[in-house]
Amino acid sequence: MKQWNTLADNRRQRMARGLAVTDRIVDPAKIVALLEAVVESGDRVCLEGNNQKQADFLASALCKVNPARVHDLHMLQSVLALPEHLDVFDKGIASKLDFSFSGPQAGQLARLVAAGKINIGAIHTYLELFGRYFIDLTPRVALVAAQAADRDGNLYTGPNTEDTPPIVEATAFKSGIVIAQVNEIVDVLPRIDVPAGWVDFVVQAPTPHYIEPLFTRDPAQISEVQVLMAMMAIKGIYAEYGVERINHGIGFDTAAIELILPTYAESLGLKGKIGRHWALNPHPALIPAIEAGFVESVHSFGSELGMERYIEARSDVFFTGRDGSMRSNRAMCQTAGMYACDMFIGSTLQIDLQGNSSTATLGRISGFGGAPNMGSDARGRRHTSDAWLKAGEQARHGDRIPRGRKLVVQTVETFREHMEPAFVERLDAWQLAEQAKLAIPPVMIYGDDVTHILTEEGIANLLLCRTDEEREQAIRGVAGYTQVGMARDKRMVENLRDRGIVVRAEDLGIDKRMATRDLLAAKNMKDLVRASGGLYTPPKRFRNW
Amino acid sequence: MKQWNTLADNRRQRMARGLAVTDRIVDPAKIVALLEAVVESGDRVCLEGNNQKQADFLASALCKVNPARVHDLHMLQSVLALPEHLDVFDKGIASKLDFSFSGPQAGQLARLVAAGKINIGAIHTYLELFGRYFIDLTPRVALVAAQAADRDGNLYTGPNTEDTPPIVEATAFKSGIVIAQVNEIVDVLPRIDVPAGWVDFVVQAPTPHYIEPLFTRDPAQISEVQVLMAMMAIKGIYAEYGVERINHGIGFDTAAIELILPTYAESLGLKGKIGRHWALNPHPALIPAIEAGFVESVHSFGSELGMERYIEARSDVFFTGRDGSMRSNRAMCQTAGMYACDMFIGSTLQIDLQGNSSTATLGRISGFGGAPNMGSDARGRRHTSDAWLKAGEQARHGDRIPRGRKLVVQTVETFREHMEPAFVERLDAWQLAEQAKLAIPPVMIYGDDVTHILTEEGIANLLLCRTDEEREQAIRGVAGYTQVGMARDKRMVENLRDRGIVVRAEDLGIDKRMATRDLLAAKNMKDLVRASGGLYTPPKRFRNW
Repeated sequence: MKQWNTLADNRRQRMARGLAVTDRIVDPAKIVALLEAVVESGDRVCLEGNNQKQADFLASALCKVNPARVHDLHMLQSVLALPEHLDVFDKGIASKLDFSFSGPQAGQLARLVAAGKINIGAIHTYLELFGRYFIDLTPRVALVAAQAADRDGNLYTGPNTEDTPPIVEATAFKSGIVIAQVNEIVDVLPRIDVPAGWVDFVVQAPTPHYIEPLFTRDPAQISEVQVLMAMMAIKGIYAEYGVERINHGIGFDTAAIELILPTYAESLGLKGKIGRHWALNPHPALIPAIEAGFVESVHSFGSELGMERYIEARSDVFFTGRDGSMRSNRAMCQTAGMYACDMFIGSTLQIDLQGNSSTATLGRISGFGGAPNMGSDARGRRHTSDAWLKAGEQARHGDRIPRGRKLVVQTVETFREHMEPAFVERLDAWQLAEQAKLAIPPVMIYGDDVTHILTEEGIANLLLCRTDEEREQAIRGVAGYTQVGMARDKRMVENLRDRGIVVRAEDLGIDKRMATRDLLAAKNMKDLVRASGGLYTPPKRFRNW
Repeated sequence: MKQWNTLADNRRQRMARGLAVTDRIVDPAKIVALLEAVVESGDRVCLEGNNQKQADFLASALCKVNPARVHDLHMLQSVLALPEHLDVFDKGIASKLDFSFSGPQAGQLARLVAAGKINIGAIHTYLELFGRYFIDLTPRVALVAAQAADRDGNLYTGPNTEDTPPIVEATAFKSGIVIAQVNEIVDVLPRIDVPAGWVDFVVQAPTPHYIEPLFTRDPAQISEVQVLMAMMAIKGIYAEYGVERINHGIGFDTAAIELILPTYAESLGLKGKIGRHWALNPHPALIPAIEAGFVESVHSFGSELGMERYIEARSDVFFTGRDGSMRSNRAMCQTAGMYACDMFIGSTLQIDLQGNSSTATLGRISGFGGAPNMGSDARGRRHTSDAWLKAGEQARHGDRIPRGRKLVVQTVETFREHMEPAFVERLDAWQLAEQAKLAIPPVMIYGDDVTHILTEEGIANLLLCRTDEEREQAIRGVAGYTQVGMARDKRMVENLRDRGIVVRAEDLGIDKRMATRDLLAAKNMKDLVRASGGLYTPPKRFRNW
C-alpha cells in the first residue's frame, strides 16, 4: 500500500521529538537540542537570510548541531550575509546550496565551492527562488526571523517583513517545521503578520536579529560626474518616455537621481509627470523628493533602519499597518517591480559589446538578488502605458505585431574604482562559469533586455539599433576612454548620434557647468535629517556631523 | 501645511460612519447601508471575482447602493464572472474597470464598452494586476470572500484562497477598508488564512459564495484526435526535452495528456523523468497520474470542487494546512508557474503566421487570465534545468551568449467547432482593438514566446527556425486543411521536416492506430472516482452515470 501522507506523519514525529526537548516557546538554551530533534539529515532547510534582516541566532545554532547526527542539509537561502551561513558547510552540516545573493560572502563562497565543500544547485533571482519553494524546492524546515511573537506564536515582523511570508507559507502548508527567532515575546502584538497556526516554535534570541542598512547612501559622497549622469537620465530618459512607475537599484548613481528630482527635474516642469509611483526600499535619499510632492507612493521589498518614524508620519506614501509601521513584502514588491513598473535602472560592474552586464568577478560568486527579475522585459505584461508603448515602438522592426516593452537602463561610469574599465570585450562571467562549473555564464542582465546604457559620455539607446554592429558601436560610443571606447568606428558613432541612438549631454541641451553638487536637494546626511523634519534618524555609522 | 496621513484620516471617518450603521460582524440586512457609509464616489474598489470563488453577495449588494450617493467607482477585478459584475456599471455606480479575465461576461462587457458605460483602464494577467495593486492601482475598498470567520474577524479561506491574500494586503496596508463575506461565522476556525487585524467588517452571506468547477473535464468527451495529439506532445516534447516541471492550461487537450501519462508515457519508461512537479489547479484528470506515482507535487492557484477529500488524503502531493484542507494562492502559483516551471502548454482560438495567438473574437472582450504570464519566456530566470538549457540552445543564433528558455506550447486542432480555422492570416484581435479602442491588439501569447505549435498534423518547432519565412512555413506545415495550411510551400515544408522543424506522428515512431480512447487511464467521470478510491466526489452536473 502506497503511503500518501508521509510528510505529515514525519512532521508529527518531528514535533513529538521537538516537544520532548522544549515547549513551543523555546528555552533559548535548548535551541541546538531542538534543531537536533527536528532537523533530519538531507533536509531542505530554508534559513531566512534576507537582504537586510537575518535569522542570525538560528544560523549560529544550526552551526552547533552535531554533524554526526545532522548532515548533508540542502540550504535554501535568499541571501548569504553572515559567516555562519558558510560555516554550516565548512562544518559538514550542510552540503548543497540554492540561493540568490551572497554579497559580502561571495569570496568565501567561491573558496568553499572550489574546495568541494559546497555543491551549488543554482543561483536565482529572489522571485524565482520563492517560486521554486512551491514547486521542487519546498523547505522541510524553515528558520525565520521576526520582531516579536505573542504567547500563541503569532508573529509580528514589523517593517522588515521581507521574505518571511512565502518562506513560511511554502513550509507550513507542506507539512514542514517552522521555527521563528524573535526579539521579544509580548502579550499583545502591534499587529499580526504571520498567524500562529503557521508557526511551530518560537525562540527569543539573546540579542535582536542583525539588520543591515543597505539602502542608505550618504549624499556627501555623490560626485559631480554622478550629478551630470543623473541630469542626463532625467532629461534623456525619464522625461523622454514620461516614466511614472519606477524601480531604482541601490547605489550612488540612482541616489543622485533621487536627489535632483526636487531641483533639476522640478525646474524642467516634470513634477507629476515622472517618478510618481515607486517599487523600492525606503531610500533616505528619496526624502527630499517625497517632501517636494514628487512621489505619490512607495511599495517596498524591505525597510531601512532609521526611516521608521518618517514612514509612519508619511502613511499616504508608504504601505503601513494600523500600528503605524511599514509592511514590506519582497515577493509582492518584486512582482510589482517586474510587472507594474515601466523602468528599472541600476548599476553593474561589467558590460560587453552585446550589452550583457554582469557583477560577477573572478573568485567571487556573488549571485543576482532581484535585478535580473526587474531588469528584464516582462513579456507577460499586457497593460499599456505611454512609456511602455514608446519603448516598444522604438524596438519594433518591420511589420511585427505592436507590443510595448520595459525600459531597462544600466548606468555606469566608464571606469570604476582602481581604474577598472566597465566596458570589456568579454565578461569575467565566462571564466567564473568555468571555475565554478556553472552551465552558463552568470549574466546579471542580458543585452537584449537592456534598452539604454548611460555613462558620463552619454546615453546609448539600444532600442533604436537595427543590427548587431550598430548595437556594438552604440555601446563603444558611450564607453569613453576604455579600450572598448577607443576602438569605436568614429564615423559610425557620429552617424548613430545623428540618428539619436547615441546622445550626448549637449544634445539634450544640458549645460555641463550646471552639473554641480549644488543641484543635490540634500548634500549630506544632516540635510536628509533636516528635510525629514527630524523624523529620519540615521544609524550611528552615518551620523558624521 | 501639507497633510501626509490623509488616507488614514479618511479611513477613520469611514470606519466611524460604518460602525454607526452596524457592528464589525455585520447584520446582513445592513450590508447596503454599510457600503453606502464606507464607499465614496470615485473610489478604487476591488471586488473579489476570482477564477472560481466569487464574492457574490457583496457584488449584489454593491449593485443596490444609491448611484446618487455612490458613483464613478473604479472597479479592480481579476475575473468578471457574474451578471452583477457588469450591472454595477449599467446602473451608473461604477464607470472604470481594470481587470484580467471576463469569460462568460465577455460579450456583455463588449456591449457596455460600446455603449460608453465602461471605460476600460487595461486588460491584465492576474499577476500584473496584483503587482499594480501595490503601485498605482491600490484599492481603497476591498470586498472579498472567505469560507468562514471567527468573531474576531480572522478569515479561513479554505482551499479556495485564490486571490485573497494580495488583495487584502494591498488594501489593509494602505489605510483601505476590507469587507469580507463568509459562509459561516464560527467560534474556532480550522486555521487562519488572513489575520483579523487586516479585516474591518465581516458579513455572513445568506447563501454560500458561488464557486465554479472550472477545471473539471469529463474524459468521456476526449476524442481520439486529442489522444493522438497527447501522444505527440509526450513523445515529441515532454520526453524530447525531459520536462519535469509543468504548468498545464485548462482544456480537453491537456486533460488527454494527463490521462495518458500512466498508460502511454509509462510504456515509454518516462515515469520519474517527466511531469514530476506541477503548477496547476487540482485537475480531476490528474488523479490517475497521481495514483500511478507520476506526480510528486502540485501547487495550485485555486482548488476544484469535489477534490477536497482526495487532496486531504494525498497531502504528500498537495499543499495542505494542518486542518487537512488545501491552501491555494494564485499570486505565488503564478510566480511558480512563470519562474519555476520549464513548460507551459495551453490552447488558443487563433494563431497567425508569426505564431501570435489570441482568444479574442469579435464582439467579445474576454481578457487574458494567467496564460500570458506563464506562456512567456521568463527572461529574469537564472537557474538552469536540462529542458530549459536545451530549448535555449535550439533558439540560439550565432555567437550570442548562452541562455536557456522556457518551452511554450500552443496546442490546437486545425479546425475548432463550427469548422472555424485555428490558423488565420490576421487575428480578429486587430479588429477588436479598433472596436474597443485598445492601444494594441489583445494578443494572448506573442509568436516570439511560442516554442512549439502542436496540431493533429504534427509539431512545428519554432525554436529551430532561423528566418521569418521558415517560421511561417513551419506554421503552415502543421495547419492542415485550413487556408493557411493549404497555401504552404510544399518543398520548403518537406525541407523543414528533414531538419526536424516540422515533425509528424510517424517521424516520432507513433503508430496512429494506437491513438484510441483505450489509452485513457480514465474514460469517464466514474473511472476518475474509482481511480481516486472513492475520494473524489464530482459536482452534480458531472455525475452522469
